Amino acid sequence: MAKLGEALTEVLIPLAAVIGIGFAVLQWILVSRIRLSSGPVEKNGRPENLVGGEPEEEEEEGVDGPASVTKCAEIQSAISIGATSFLITEYKYLAVFMVIFGVIIFLFLGSVKGFSKDSQPCTYSKDRMCKPALANAAFSTLAFLLGSLTSVLSGFLGMKIATYANARTTVEARKGVGRAFIAAFRSGAVMGFLLAANGLLVLYISINLFKIYYGDDWEGLYESITGYGLGGSSMALFGRVGGGIYTKAADVGADLVGKVERNIPEDDPRNPAVIADNVGDNVGDIAGMGSDLFGSYAESSCAALFVGSISSFGINHDFSAMSYPLLISSMGIIVCLFTTLVATDFFEIKSVKQIEPSLKWQLVISTVLMTGGIAIVSFVALPSKFTLFNFGENKTVKNWHLFFCVSVGLWAGLIIGYVTEYFTSNAYRPVQAVADSCRTGAATNVIFGLALGYKSVIVPIFAIAVAIYVSFSLASMYGIAVAALGMLSTIATGLSIDAYGPISDNAGGIAEMAGMSRKIRERTDALDSAGNTTAAIGKGFAIGSAALVSLALFGAFVSRAGIDFVNVLSPKVFIGLMVGAMLPYWFSAMTMRSVGSAALKMVEEVRRQFNTIPGLMEGTTKPDYATCVKISTDASLRKMIPPGALVMLTPLIAGTFFGVETLAGVLAGALVSGVQVAISASNTGGAWDNAKKYIEAGVSEHAKALGPKGSDPHKAAVVGDTIGDPLKDTSGPSLNILVKLMAVESLVLAPFFAAHGGLLFKWFR
Amino acid sequence: MAKLGEALTEVLIPLAAVIGIGFAVLQWILVSRIRLSSGPVEKNGRPENLVGGEPEEEEEEGVDGPASVTKCAEIQSAISIGATSFLITEYKYLAVFMVIFGVIIFLFLGSVKGFSKDSQPCTYSKDRMCKPALANAAFSTLAFLLGSLTSVLSGFLGMKIATYANARTTVEARKGVGRAFIAAFRSGAVMGFLLAANGLLVLYISINLFKIYYGDDWEGLYESITGYGLGGSSMALFGRVGGGIYTKAADVGADLVGKVERNIPEDDPRNPAVIADNVGDNVGDIAGMGSDLFGSYAESSCAALFVGSISSFGINHDFSAMSYPLLISSMGIIVCLFTTLVATDFFEIKSVKQIEPSLKWQLVISTVLMTGGIAIVSFVALPSKFTLFNFGENKTVKNWHLFFCVSVGLWAGLIIGYVTEYFTSNAYRPVQAVADSCRTGAATNVIFGLALGYKSVIVPIFAIAVAIYVSFSLASMYGIAVAALGMLSTIATGLSIDAYGPISDNAGGIAEMAGMSRKIRERTDALDSAGNTTAAIGKGFAIGSAALVSLALFGAFVSRAGIDFVNVLSPKVFIGLMVGAMLPYWFSAMTMRSVGSAALKMVEEVRRQFNTIPGLMEGTTKPDYATCVKISTDASLRKMIPPGALVMLTPLIAGTFFGVETLAGVLAGALVSGVQVAISASNTGGAWDNAKKYIEAGVSEHAKALGPKGSDPHKAAVVGDTIGDPLKDTSGPSLNILVKLMAVESLVLAPFFAAHGGLLFKWFR
Repeated sequence: MAKLGEALTEVLIPLAAVIGIGFAVLQWILVSRIRLSSGPVEKNGRPENLVGGEPEEEEEEGVDGPASVTKCAEIQSAISIGATSFLITEYKYLAVFMVIFGVIIFLFLGSVKGFSKDSQPCTYSKDRMCKPALANAAFSTLAFLLGSLTSVLSGFLGMKIATYANARTTVEARKGVGRAFIAAFRSGAVMGFLLAANGLLVLYISINLFKIYYGDDWEGLYESITGYGLGGSSMALFGRVGGGIYTKAADVGADLVGKVERNIPEDDPRNPAVIADNVGDNVGDIAGMGSDLFGSYAESSCAALFVGSISSFGINHDFSAMSYPLLISSMGIIVCLFTTLVATDFFEIKSVKQIEPSLKWQLVISTVLMTGGIAIVSFVALPSKFTLFNFGENKTVKNWHLFFCVSVGLWAGLIIGYVTEYFTSNAYRPVQAVADSCRTGAATNVIFGLALGYKSVIVPIFAIAVAIYVSFSLASMYGIAVAALGMLSTIATGLSIDAYGPISDNAGGIAEMAGMSRKIRERTDALDSAGNTTAAIGKGFAIGSAALVSLALFGAFVSRAGIDFVNVLSPKVFIGLMVGAMLPYWFSAMTMRSVGSAALKMVEEVRRQFNTIPGLMEGTTKPDYATCVKISTDASLRKMIPPGALVMLTPLIAGTFFGVETLAGVLAGALVSGVQVAISASNTGGAWDNAKKYIEAGVSEHAKALGPKGSDPHKAAVVGDTIGDPLKDTSGPSLNILVKLMAVESLVLAPFFAAHGGLLFKWFR
Repeated sequence: MAKLGEALTEVLIPLAAVIGIGFAVLQWILVSRIRLSSGPVEKNGRPENLVGGEPEEEEEEGVDGPASVTKCAEIQSAISIGATSFLITEYKYLAVFMVIFGVIIFLFLGSVKGFSKDSQPCTYSKDRMCKPALANAAFSTLAFLLGSLTSVLSGFLGMKIATYANARTTVEARKGVGRAFIAAFRSGAVMGFLLAANGLLVLYISINLFKIYYGDDWEGLYESITGYGLGGSSMALFGRVGGGIYTKAADVGADLVGKVERNIPEDDPRNPAVIADNVGDNVGDIAGMGSDLFGSYAESSCAALFVGSISSFGINHDFSAMSYPLLISSMGIIVCLFTTLVATDFFEIKSVKQIEPSLKWQLVISTVLMTGGIAIVSFVALPSKFTLFNFGENKTVKNWHLFFCVSVGLWAGLIIGYVTEYFTSNAYRPVQAVADSCRTGAATNVIFGLALGYKSVIVPIFAIAVAIYVSFSLASMYGIAVAALGMLSTIATGLSIDAYGPISDNAGGIAEMAGMSRKIRERTDALDSAGNTTAAIGKGFAIGSAALVSLALFGAFVSRAGIDFVNVLSPKVFIGLMVGAMLPYWFSAMTMRSVGSAALKMVEEVRRQFNTIPGLMEGTTKPDYATCVKISTDASLRKMIPPGALVMLTPLIAGTFFGVETLAGVLAGALVSGVQVAISASNTGGAWDNAKKYIEAGVSEHAKALGPKGSDPHKAAVVGDTIGDPLKDTSGPSLNILVKLMAVESLVLAPFFAAHGGLLFKWFR
């Protein structure tokens, strides 16, 4: 048995979650102290300037007076209202989906034993009786709904925080880059900790509530809990795709007319699509990504719990050992808490150059500390020796094996993060070479950018392969699941620096729109450039963890479907592999086209406004922002359905008509192919974006020779940036959800496919 | 036993090959009748105008007189000399590689039994004695060298024919589009038939020569013969990559300065890179593709022969049944002969609109006729019932099963061809939508083009999946091998219409350079536009067949390595799958970058010439073509080595250090991922090219609104076309060689990996 008692486990997990939430609230209070009004104006019934804030003399720059602050507050309010109204509309659609898919889950799983209410012998501990399949169907559906709601909540809260923080970051930029950085970073931390702690808490409470019914039947309990992961991920899919289409339709449309045709700067208030663009950052990059990483976290936890439940400690009902995945996450929250303090309190940013290193150190510190944390948890929570289920046979494992499994995932994440940074930051050769290729125009820029994306796949794949080999060899599928969890254990920090990106981006947009001085804009640009890189790192993490998570889910699916091996030399499996590897392309074709055609509409509308509204170009009349918001909203809601349907229906069709073997092939194919497409798409896009920023910033001799803004190389760079937008913010990040979601859906519905699947082959036989 | 006697088989195969060669010679004679000189000028000691030719009165257009014909001949000579000198230089490099790799094969295979000269018990018929492993090593090496030489010969002859035919097509265009079409198509047929018949003949002779030594030991005989496929494919790799870099560096460089900066038309003689560009078409699209398809053909034959040798008819030494793959190819030559006559003799092209349908009908006619041919061969050459080796167990198969296997491959090829045409011809919606997206600039053009490429993957993958499932289920790995052969059975026709493309492209270039009238140029443009589509169809075939071939080789490798299943749930296999799926990206990164950086150099040189050579823009001075040819030559020879090394070394490293299971994973991963990348890259590039041509041609109202040449949408289309160049002519087509080559290399070296491989895992254990 584990050294850690059950009672202590029951206390420690919720305690960590509550500490995480408390820390998030604290950060929020600190951010809210930044005043967003110049006088004692009542806002929401509460005089904002009474909350406290810094004394007046610290405002180094007097150029951006109270008027611009008021303007910031106005713009913030417009963005916040736009984002909230879009998300609420989106959630209405998702509610319909949730109900329909909840019914599907219940019917599919209920039909496994013909809706019988009788108890059944357990699958793995054959001498015990387990709860009826109908109960599992009901609880899986419930878990699905809980996961969906938590995911939606994570996305919504993230958006609320980000739209609260953006203008405050702009205002703080007046006082120096360090202050602005802290404002943006703290706001990111609010989201990071809230999401990590909330995800853990809801999962913990659900397990304890489900236990009341399930009692001794842990097999059924942890089988049902997998619905939580499915719920989390399916909401994330629509969030990522819908948000991604929204934001990129607006962004591409705004850039094509504003920057290319009219030669006005990014985020210029005269551009009718500018509000939609800024709203998009919040619904796509923030809400979408929040849901996405929550989904990964929920799925890897569920995969680990499910595989754990059929191990020796699961069968022996050792609750502490069973809770190992949750304890790792709890430790992660505490570790990330210390890491955040390093950035905000122990160390002060004084110049623009310190921003990127500071963010990068966050990753290193959290990884080093967490390695120690994993050691502690592994030695106290796990029995020194136990057996794991390994596709039909048992495998003896020691607790220090698990330490290596979690750590290898954690460190693989760090490597992926650093490689991503190398390929997407304009401080290094690769992006500079892409920028250099703009000398000969957009075509060479695109050729070099695509090549860069392809090349950036190499090291992450080797890192993932090593993580898979080590953890798989040491602890079979449980090893993979906890390796994924290891990569996600520092999720609070990862999300903090990830959310920091769009917040800074928005801050810059608000500065531009509020007409603030060039100095302020330079500071927010520096924050934003670092944010681009961290966003790319965040996507790297999301994809890397998705690869491990889906492999773990795949393994759990195979176990649950009762297959002992998946033979590539079987035609059923091979065609699955082939078609599975094709799905990321099909999916990307849909999302790319959606962004493209929505952007075309946006371009027409923006052109129309410039041509028909007198005084718009001169800045004397306001554009009609609302029509552009509507175009993005309509496009994203309508166009998120086909790719969503592709992902949700594929496992249903493959499992029902072709059976579990083909489905296993599809999952493996989608995984190995999707990861490559996702990484290359994200990094290509990130590199183009920063190549453009490199030329604009003009900090080196080389960069100056390519610039300034408006030069031919810069125009070529803008074309690359525009092409990269849907790649890096729509297709790329959605693909990791495709990979995970198909796996978790297959896992949840595995009993049905095993019992009734493969109709087509049955007919033909 | 088979109905067809051994003696008749021994006659029929060489007979078909000789008929094919004879037909090719006949076509060549017909083409050579076109006079390329205006007076009785001695050329190569032979007065060309005495060869015959059409009477003077048939020349409808008198505007392009004898002077321009002389100019055509000059340009042709320049192109031919350039192409010949490049290929000879390239072959010198390849000779070094052939020797080195030949030694590697000999040493690796020889070491399997420690270079022992003793006979050994056979692997499959255990009661018999087989020749020593050392003999297999020696004969495999010999077969490798033979395959290499045949591949080089195929490429070289193809190039010679194409450079002979291009100017003749231009000259014929004066007499009407039908005449020009026939000239180009006949020349394509020379190459198609020569290559198909030659490949068959060399293989047939090799088998019969090897039999003198091997006698009764068919296992060893057909094992050694697999070296033929390896030789063919490894030359093809370098041919495709080297030729691809050559042609696209020149093309991109010429376009970027000529079309974009200087606003001069494509193939304008003032452009210094124009000769390099036209040379490139011949060394890349013709020589490279010839080697590639010869490689596919050799590999699928070898895979089928190897798998056949361990079947019941192989063990029983039924030579006719063993020769089934060769008989299918023989039948293919005869069928294609009739098909060609339809295009050249039974039916006459009278207008531009008939070109594309005529080429498409070639595919349909050959497929329908061949289906009958397959039935005949299957019923006469195969015993009515026999057993095949199926990974450790025997599978009973009937001869009509094999009919379905070959046919499903053949028809899948047709479907792939048609889908490719749909997505890349500007007669249909997809390319028109891409052209339309040029209204908003290059960025949307690229986004839509990429989406089109992704989408075009769907149907071909399903077609391949169905072909795999049917043939695999009916006749295991032998089924897959003959399905691949089925797809390639109409290779003579496929190559004819494929080679037709670059010949027409060159003909257009020569017309432009010789300053011929607009009418001539319009005709050659029409030929060229159809050629773009057929080139895309050809690539579709090459990729589809590569997928089937590599699966067959993969199966043969697994059999030969003595593995009975490849379990995705084994970590060794899974990491192989993951890394294998990454290789196409790594490879593409290298080739794209090579084209990009060579193009940059070319751009600088072309700019330099325009800036420093007085009178160049005015056409009074000739540019320095030779320097541009040298840049392309140097770049391609230097840059073909790293991607070549990646492909050749990966199986060696994976097999030696990680063992056969990981290698099997790598092969499967590279296959399922590479096919997608290859199809999408080829079709995206083809679509961009034809979107540009659509705007230029301006045949519909819609197209006219986007044009004319030099308009903003046209400029955006040119950017897309330029980006597509390396995708469709370097990366895309090389990838199918990557997939095949790694598989055939693994097959040839399988005994070594099985005996001594997996060092790394052995050390750690």
